[in-house]
Amino acid sequence: MSETKITIAVLGASGYTGAEMLRIAATHSAMHIVALTAERRAGQEVGAVYPHLAGMDLPPMCKIEEMGWQGVDAVFCCLPHATTQEVVAGLPGHLKVIDLSADFRLRDEAIYAEWYGHEHLAPALQPEVVYGLTEHYRSEIAKARIVACPGCYPTSALLPLLPIVAAGQIEVGDIVIDSKSGVTGAGRTPKEGMLYAEVAEGIHAYGIAQHRHAPEMEQELAVAAGQAITVNFTPHLVPMNRGILSTIYVRLANGVDIAALRASLRAAYDDEAFVRLVPEGQTPATRHVRGSNHCLIGVFEDRVPGRAILVSVLDNLVKGAAGQAVQNFNVAFGLPETMGLESQPLFP
Amino acid sequence: MSETKITIAVLGASGYTGAEMLRIAATHSAMHIVALTAERRAGQEVGAVYPHLAGMDLPPMCKIEEMGWQGVDAVFCCLPHATTQEVVAGLPGHLKVIDLSADFRLRDEAIYAEWYGHEHLAPALQPEVVYGLTEHYRSEIAKARIVACPGCYPTSALLPLLPIVAAGQIEVGDIVIDSKSGVTGAGRTPKEGMLYAEVAEGIHAYGIAQHRHAPEMEQELAVAAGQAITVNFTPHLVPMNRGILSTIYVRLANGVDIAALRASLRAAYDDEAFVRLVPEGQTPATRHVRGSNHCLIGVFEDRVPGRAILVSVLDNLVKGAAGQAVQNFNVAFGLPETMGLESQPLFP
Amino acid sequence: MSETKITIAVLGASGYTGAEMLRIAATHSAMHIVALTAERRAGQEVGAVYPHLAGMDLPPMCKIEEMGWQGVDAVFCCLPHATTQEVVAGLPGHLKVIDLSADFRLRDEAIYAEWYGHEHLAPALQPEVVYGLTEHYRSEIAKARIVACPGCYPTSALLPLLPIVAAGQIEVGDIVIDSKSGVTGAGRTPKEGMLYAEVAEGIHAYGIAQHRHAPEMEQELAVAAGQAITVNFTPHLVPMNRGILSTIYVRLANGVDIAALRASLRAAYDDEAFVRLVPEGQTPATRHVRGSNHCLIGVFEDRVPGRAILVSVLDNLVKGAAGQAVQNFNVAFGLPETMGLESQPLFP
Amino acid sequence: MSETKITIAVLGASGYTGAEMLRIAATHSAMHIVALTAERRAGQEVGAVYPHLAGMDLPPMCKIEEMGWQGVDAVFCCLPHATTQEVVAGLPGHLKVIDLSADFRLRDEAIYAEWYGHEHLAPALQPEVVYGLTEHYRSEIAKARIVACPGCYPTSALLPLLPIVAAGQIEVGDIVIDSKSGVTGAGRTPKEGMLYAEVAEGIHAYGIAQHRHAPEMEQELAVAAGQAITVNFTPHLVPMNRGILSTIYVRLANGVDIAALRASLRAAYDDEAFVRLVPEGQTPATRHVRGSNHCLIGVFEDRVPGRAILVSVLDNLVKGAAGQAVQNFNVAFGLPETMGLESQPLFP
Repeated sequence: MSETKITIAVLGASGYTGAEMLRIAATHSAMHIVALTAERRAGQEVGAVYPHLAGMDLPPMCKIEEMGWQGVDAVFCCLPHATTQEVVAGLPGHLKVIDLSADFRLRDEAIYAEWYGHEHLAPALQPEVVYGLTEHYRSEIAKARIVACPGCYPTSALLPLLPIVAAGQIEVGDIVIDSKSGVTGAGRTPKEGMLYAEVAEGIHAYGIAQHRHAPEMEQELAVAAGQAITVNFTPHLVPMNRGILSTIYVRLANGVDIAALRASLRAAYDDEAFVRLVPEGQTPATRHVRGSNHCLIGVFEDRVPGRAILVSVLDNLVKGAAGQAVQNFNVAFGLPETMGLESQPLFP
Repeated sequence: MSETKITIAVLGASGYTGAEMLRIAATHSAMHIVALTAERRAGQEVGAVYPHLAGMDLPPMCKIEEMGWQGVDAVFCCLPHATTQEVVAGLPGHLKVIDLSADFRLRDEAIYAEWYGHEHLAPALQPEVVYGLTEHYRSEIAKARIVACPGCYPTSALLPLLPIVAAGQIEVGDIVIDSKSGVTGAGRTPKEGMLYAEVAEGIHAYGIAQHRHAPEMEQELAVAAGQAITVNFTPHLVPMNRGILSTIYVRLANGVDIAALRASLRAAYDDEAFVRLVPEGQTPATRHVRGSNHCLIGVFEDRVPGRAILVSVLDNLVKGAAGQAVQNFNVAFGLPETMGLESQPLFP
Repeated sequence: MSETKITIAVLGASGYTGAEMLRIAATHSAMHIVALTAERRAGQEVGAVYPHLAGMDLPPMCKIEEMGWQGVDAVFCCLPHATTQEVVAGLPGHLKVIDLSADFRLRDEAIYAEWYGHEHLAPALQPEVVYGLTEHYRSEIAKARIVACPGCYPTSALLPLLPIVAAGQIEVGDIVIDSKSGVTGAGRTPKEGMLYAEVAEGIHAYGIAQHRHAPEMEQELAVAAGQAITVNFTPHLVPMNRGILSTIYVRLANGVDIAALRASLRAAYDDEAFVRLVPEGQTPATRHVRGSNHCLIGVFEDRVPGRAILVSVLDNLVKGAAGQAVQNFNVAFGLPETMGLESQPLFP
Repeated sequence: MSETKITIAVLGASGYTGAEMLRIAATHSAMHIVALTAERRAGQEVGAVYPHLAGMDLPPMCKIEEMGWQGVDAVFCCLPHATTQEVVAGLPGHLKVIDLSADFRLRDEAIYAEWYGHEHLAPALQPEVVYGLTEHYRSEIAKARIVACPGCYPTSALLPLLPIVAAGQIEVGDIVIDSKSGVTGAGRTPKEGMLYAEVAEGIHAYGIAQHRHAPEMEQELAVAAGQAITVNFTPHLVPMNRGILSTIYVRLANGVDIAALRASLRAAYDDEAFVRLVPEGQTPATRHVRGSNHCLIGVFEDRVPGRAILVSVLDNLVKGAAGQAVQNFNVAFGLPETMGLESQPLFP
């Protein structure tokens, strides 16, 4: 390994998000993985936990408490929600922290406590945190010590909504976000509801009006709108491993039409590597982004006058998790933003 | 076969809907299938077209023009859209016609022509037609000569919406219907977009603001509301064979709450065999109705004040097609409405 | 419920096999379910455990120890392996026991202990047990008190093999059984390996040369052959809910050809309601039997001279479990063998 | 694009194999795609045929007859079987041809004619052809003008079998190859049997004893064995997009045991980048190789004395098609063999 590489540790490497981090890191030419932690799998080789990664040259899993942090430049935290706050609070200050959990996403402690059921455990760190939606917080990410990577659903909703909300093009009191997700967002811990037989050949909604990604969306939309916003957000579970599709129903502000929405989105993303408006006549599909860091957005006229429909797709494990984390890492370390993320989607 | 059975012919028996008709007929104690038609498969045995039905004692497929209609009491038309009108116009008047196509669903010829791209070919028959949403047109179905069975999406949207629209409980100008369907609705004709590799492990929207089931929904909602209605209807294709889930976003009328919606739905369906409100705390899932004639409905409070969410599920080939057709047949012939439809869902 | 119905209890009703028992019982005109047990779910309604069965009129789940056995004519045991022996030993003698577990399938206690890792707990009951492969033990089943229903894999292997082994048509030292199964055979208990994300879009072998269904196959093949037999049996997990396909490679005895194999199978099964040889030119597919009690068999000439290939398919939850159990129940009580099992396969 | 890149054309770029070629080429640092052909899609952009590749900078599709070959160094032929022979015969001699079709795989013209139903159209080219199983023909590939890349099934069977056949460790008259494949091997042309509804939730065998990949396997096994060989090869279709798993049943030669088989495979592949023996206790799964050029092999003891079981897995579109083609391209042009093929598998 070259001395000039950035040394990283992946905390919580045994879940799907951790595995995806390792997959991406394998072709990232500036990352050198020096440590992996996994509490229940400590002592095991990666190949025992994830046989598909057995060919990589990686250190064995260890416990977080066994970690020495000298010689580590950055950590990717793929830990379960609520455990991250204490872990991050205990890390030395020289480390860049790219956090993939929900623990630092909400800036308002009261809202955090309301939705997560307990007081925030490391409120003192909040000033060092930036919300890691790369396309919208790029300059802050470059300077922050802690990057709180967005949830998968919020990424799929905010990328299409932020530019048009910021432009005042829609009525912010009337936003319906109907999202459909693959199963990997639920993690690798065995639960009855995630068994193949309970998921295959069916679809259902869950967490209706109660999903924790709603306040996260509202926080960022409020910033763009300059006023508080309540959204309707309804997630559904689809029999597929990866992918989120969000169908977003909005009411246009006076005098705004579809072309204006498209113009705002083009202005926001035409220079971006990973976010793209699909041509008119095409419809985004999750299988067009699988395995890639891409987000595709479509804009459609509704039959109900004055309304419009936005459709966005991304891979929840890449742009919705590990890919966006690497994108933020690249920004934080001044690397080309696409490094390690050049793979085209795997289709079919 | 007993002489007292009702003799039926299935026209267009070689598609998925036709096959589903045969499956249901196999356990219907009052039906005797005397003829099957399938243009391209004429001369073939059912077992050659559908090996899973080889064990049934059925006549071979023939062409419609080869049919003799004497001795036939009823026909189930599972023909492609647009071919049904001429076929039905040519049938003898003694036949009860249960039509599963879209050809007689729209009462307004102008709307038909607008959405289907040609003039209606048998407008003279329209007075003999009734819309076959059994729970809402039962007494008319008992007397009609032609029953136009509803589309799969309209069935899933109308069953939850009609009672609350009729009761004036929601704002009819603000209805968003986000539907997710399995693939069998698209039929058995080979198309690139329906290949396994193009459908599996993904989801996409299609026909946004252009799907022909929208005017059908609007026609029936207008009857309930006493005024014209335009809905937002967005269908999605999900990797599953059977099932439709519709998530419906509505704005409550002044002073109406969730409990009132539930009360209307209970009043409408508590005595129905096939439509059921799920208990509070449960969420309908398509896999809970697969293979059955059931429709399950859930009602949920939105976080946005004054809004509510309805979720309905059904099997598009059963309650959305062949099952509802048999239910209408039972009504039309004065049989117990559940005859042949007693099967419980196949789960998993 | 009619007084003349047979009253049954289902023990272990909360698993997939138990649910399938209830589904079939719903349309069985001579069964009256009077009790359901489920240890961890005791006190719950069926609809809470299996929402798709909420429409049935069923008693709530209870613990086995809470059961009173008076007024119960028969029990279906869907309990986990190893717990059944003690439960059955404690049942009153008037009860017919239809056991779906592996606990009484192996007649040789030593073989049982070798494969299941502990001594048999109720060897005294063995004389009252008959192996419940209906087509081959029908007259014994009619008289037995305890019917040990075959495993799903053995059913799929024995139905094609028994007639040709009994006829001496193949070399019994050279049988390779390559089986492919859906996931429901593994039950509903959450395990990492059965998560959707670990099963979908892939296939793998498991339990190579170590699966407990091998000695069960060997026991019955030995009876037919009149000599001990060791088979090669390799199961694979396929991303589907239901279904087993077994591809069986055999070496023909001198002078035997494919036509002779077909003749033996026809002689064995032409009068059977549920086992059928597919026409030449067709290949059995699991989706042709899904949800039904059917087993389809195909016979094919190998390119290697003197060898042949048999392919069988069945639904592991029906002919491989609950359906065969009901078939045996029908035999045991002198009912028509197809009662409650008339449903055609659900395709697609 | 750098002048030092190798310029390539992809013929038949609109199928799944063509798309996979483009995906891999996107991260290959020495390839420059200068032309794409697709007869029916000529004139279209890649993004119209494959929206997931819209982000790549690629030339539009054209017809083969419109191609100018000057400035092209190599062609990848992804054309349908039987059309390749004439196309390749018409190419200028300076071009390296990497052919992914079956048209040049069989060295014996009579066997070709027998299995493909017509005389070979370019027999004169055969001396310039080498069979492109990279690990076994590397030095020949480096010098050949035409590389006939192996079929997906033969690759999965030959990689485990060749070393042990060459070592005389198994009885070559007794080889059973039971293969299970995903759907992409069947291509993108719409056919009823490849519709989602005909594939999902099921498995079936096809082409029993008649599949064209059998003679290809036999050709190469015969080279290794030094004698003619007939294999039993039975392919099955599994509901997954990518992946082949072959379960291979063999009889050991006298005195050979499992350890000896493993030793032969280790000797053959320990220095290879893409072929790997899994550790004892692990079982290869197709999802461990999805999207990668890897082939994993496991060796297992059979319960039948003197027999063994080999299991191999690969991604049919990568090591079974486009990946192996790029591997051969790398060899042919003296590049590092792993160039463009470094991606780790996409799991889940």
